Amino acid sequence: MSGVPARVTYIGIGVRDLPVMRAFYERLGWDAGEGSSDGFVWFECGGTRVSLYPWHLLAAEAGVPAEGPHTAFRGITLAINCETEGRAREVLEAARAAGARITAEGVMHPHDVWSGYFADPEGNLWEVAWSPRSNRFDARGVLIDP
Amino acid sequence: MSGVPARVTYIGIGVRDLPVMRAFYERLGWDAGEGSSDGFVWFECGGTRVSLYPWHLLAAEAGVPAEGPHTAFRGITLAINCETEGRAREVLEAARAAGARITAEGVMHPHDVWSGYFADPEGNLWEVAWSPRSNRFDARGVLIDP
Repeated sequence: MSGVPARVTYIGIGVRDLPVMRAFYERLGWDAGEGSSDGFVWFECGGTRVSLYPWHLLAAEAGVPAEGPHTAFRGITLAINCETEGRAREVLEAARAAGARITAEGVMHPHDVWSGYFADPEGNLWEVAWSPRSNRFDARGVLIDP
Repeated sequence: MSGVPARVTYIGIGVRDLPVMRAFYERLGWDAGEGSSDGFVWFECGGTRVSLYPWHLLAAEAGVPAEGPHTAFRGITLAINCETEGRAREVLEAARAAGARITAEGVMHPHDVWSGYFADPEGNLWEVAWSPRSNRFDARGVLIDP
């Protein structure tokens, strides 16, 4: 398997007011996933996951200005989780080779997730990630629950 | 089943230059889905689908200004497809009842898809939709291929 796998395992939403945003999604009838906290909330969404994370922290993680014009952070990131850390490194390089701008080089984060970010030609942000908790996929690329 | 189902069936990306954007995603190794055209391109992405659609048309469909500050269009919409048109109508009302701002009331589009849009408290846009081609889901809410 080469190239960048066509999958979206997480959709990150950068938020200004996490309690207000969490309450809104809970009013829709959604249950926050295990491990959600005052600083991070996620919801299982039909094979992908929507997460709420502070706007400035998500922009910083993605390596883009938190405010500004067209190419600045727009509040949403899309993640491609991979089977292994090595595979994630390969995928980020595949994106680079395809002409993607790397906004954040791959790094092992303190929360035990390796990730890097690339931007498409219009600034949409893709995270390439490996997590020991999200690394099994079915034939369609849908994440298999741990 | 009541409330708004927790699922993301489509991720719409509003684009400035569709040929450039399509070429980029194809360089990643992704195959454009059947029916992709000069005006709309989509990719199967692990249970959800990423689509490329002209920025102004997607903003107009979602009922928000194409340019402007915080609450204007940011280039991304997230869709919740439903089993039936009636169910989609109920879901949009459930979102309204939960305090969502309805940015586009539900309407049957010429391409045979019923949809309406709501915004979360910070302007992120959710489409509630029914399509005769995308209306079956497994137990996790993952779209079953037609």
